[in-house]
Order: sequence, then C-alpha cells, then structure tokens
Amino acid sequence: MKRNKNLFITIEGGEGSGKTTQSLLLKEYLEKKGYKVLLTREPGGTVLAEAIRSILLNPNLNLVPISELFLYEAARAQHIKEFIFPALKSGKVVICDRFTDATIAYQGYGRKLNLQLINRLNSVASFGLTPGLTIYLDIQPFKGLNKAKKLNKEAYGENGDRIERESIKFHNMVRKGYLNQAKKYNKRIKVVKTQKTSEKTQMLIKKIIDMVL
Amino acid sequence: MKRNKNLFITIEGGEGSGKTTQSLLLKEYLEKKGYKVLLTREPGGTVLAEAIRSILLNPNLNLVPISELFLYEAARAQHIKEFIFPALKSGKVVICDRFTDATIAYQGYGRKLNLQLINRLNSVASFGLTPGLTIYLDIQPFKGLNKAKKLNKEAYGENGDRIERESIKFHNMVRKGYLNQAKKYNKRIKVVKTQKTSEKTQMLIKKIIDMVL
Repeated sequence: MKRNKNLFITIEGGEGSGKTTQSLLLKEYLEKKGYKVLLTREPGGTVLAEAIRSILLNPNLNLVPISELFLYEAARAQHIKEFIFPALKSGKVVICDRFTDATIAYQGYGRKLNLQLINRLNSVASFGLTPGLTIYLDIQPFKGLNKAKKLNKEAYGENGDRIERESIKFHNMVRKGYLNQAKKYNKRIKVVKTQKTSEKTQMLIKKIIDMVL
Repeated sequence: MKRNKNLFITIEGGEGSGKTTQSLLLKEYLEKKGYKVLLTREPGGTVLAEAIRSILLNPNLNLVPISELFLYEAARAQHIKEFIFPALKSGKVVICDRFTDATIAYQGYGRKLNLQLINRLNSVASFGLTPGLTIYLDIQPFKGLNKAKKLNKEAYGENGDRIERESIKFHNMVRKGYLNQAKKYNKRIKVVKTQKTSEKTQMLIKKIIDMVL
C-alpha cells in the first residue's frame, strides 16, 4: 500500500494546551470510525529519542540553543524512519504530538534561531514529509503554563521542567510563531481555541476531522 | 585577551591512526615550550557530549545517518561554547581530537550525506570557528583498523565499536574524504603519514608546529 500523507496528522500547542488529552481522544474517535491509528509524540518513541528527551528536559543542563535544535532534528529523523514511515506505509493514521511547526515556534520564535535554517533542517530531518492536517490548540500562555505546572509538579518540582521555566515572554513568542505558521499554511493548519472542558475542545476537533477524512 | 584562532589546532585521522597518542605528545611538547594547553576531543567534554558519545558508539542502535550528523553537530556547538571559546579567550592553545573535517570525511564520504549540507551545519555548529592548523594523520585503513580493534577489544568485544564495524570500503572512503579536504585546504591541513613508531610520527608533527607557532 502506498503511503498516504493525508493520514499524517500532527497536534501542536503550547504548554498546558491539552495536546496529550486531545491526541488520545482523537485516537479513540478515529478507531471507532474503523481506522488503525498510531499515536506517537516528538521527540519520543525510539531508544535514541528517549535518550534525547531526557537530555532536553533536564533543567540543570545549560543547553546552547543551536544544540537543542540539532537534538530535536536528530530525534525527528530517527522517529520518522523507525515509526512514522512504516505506520503510514501499512495504511495507519498517524497522530503525532508535536512536529516541525513546534521547531519553528520554539526554536525559531522562542529562541530566535534563524527561521530559514530551521526550515532547511526540518525538511532534511523529515525526509520531506509534511502533515496532511495539523491541529493547533491555542491557549493563552499564562493559562496554559499554570495548568502544565500543576500537572508536572511531582516530576520536576514547583517550577516545572526546563521549558516551563522559560519566561512568559518566551511562551508568548512561541504562540506568535504558531499563529504565524497557521496564517502561512492556512490550508494545512487549523487553529482550535481550547475550550473550558476537553469535551468541548474535542467537539471542535471532530468537526475538522470529519471534513478532512 | 582576544581569541586567537591560530592557537586552535585540530588532529584528524581514521581509526588507529594514533590521534590520541599524538595529541598527548603534542600537548606535552607545547607545554614545554611554555604554552598553556587545553587538550579536548569531539564529541566529548561536556555533560551533553558524553551522553551523545554513548549514543553514537552504541553498536546496537540502528542510527539513521542524518541523525548521527545532527548529534555530532549538537555536541560540537555545546563543546565550543563551554570549552573551546573560553580556553581560546584566555590565551590557551586548544588541541582538539577531531573536528569539522571528520564530519566531512565520516558523514559525507563515509555515509554519503550531502557535502553542502554538512558544510552548512559545520559552520552553524562551530559559530564560524575554523582551526588555524589541522594535522591529518594518514594511515592505510586496513592497518589502522587492526590497531584500533586490538586496543578496543576489552570495551566492545572482538569486532570493535559501531564505527569500527563498518566495512573496509567505508574506511577507504573516509580516508579519501580526508585527503580531498587536505587538497582543498592545503594551507590549513597538513598531512602526516604515520610512521613505524609514535616517536617518529611525532618528529614530523613537531617540525610542522615549529614552523607555524
């Protein structure tokens, strides 16, 4: 069976936007519709990616921004070759929690790395694969961060992991990055404002999915 | 004190070429001459780099070539910011065991990744820093590999680490890559044929050093 890029769906969003919950709900919804689904997340999945993940989230490592970028891209390439390509080839729908748009938002707008460089690396690392659909869960950073910090308190202490410790200004820039991407690729990226309950947010996502699939 | 790029020396070479020994001997030689010297190696030195090093040398990880490239570049950027720049700034001579030429030789000629891409990433990861002098220790791959395997037998078993397990063809291509680099940058890169004893090889290196410093 030929790989169908329309079946590659990415879920994007800032901290506390509910990506994990919505990805799970979307997986269930698609399975009920009869699709086989692989739910995965960046940078994770592979042995390499988990090693990189623990580096990236270590709050004691004073990581150079360009190194951070390279690590994300390294994990991405391995993840795609080991998980995403085989799943798409076998006809599965792949839902990926964060992908190339996150790199533009976090490393480009957040860390101010050159956008053209990031686009080049994104394209190299993903072997040209682009999502058929991207759901961007939009939340005000101050709201999202409070939610994320509450959730992660046990794992990383009061102040959250390395990314959550960034200033509100950083997270506002990340959001700006996402919204600019959504404007630039308005056919592919659909902006979903997070609602008061995850059920309500899911309703909005379902509507988009029903139009696309 | 201003950073002096002429004091940045890299030692390059294939497996078993004696880089480690020669780097140590060179450090001693320069210290006797009154220089303060930092001897370091890629990808190592930083916490990040050691984590990456253990990934890179793990023979059980089926690493995608482009991921390997990204990992080397990630380690490089961190290594330069944390170690090399501060040392050069303080007036030290820095001897680095492998640098950007190794990436061209191994990932470009060995793994056939695009040379233009590697050059771009090398330049980004090293913040534009180029060595003032590069010593390339040239050895026939079949000779060097035998030496390296003997040395590393205890750590990785009969067949050596992940890189040493590559075919002789791979290592011949790596050598070709180094020799092409040496032709292209013949002012910066000096080719030293490895001699029967490390003392004899060192004599050749000393001659070059005395001309340059």
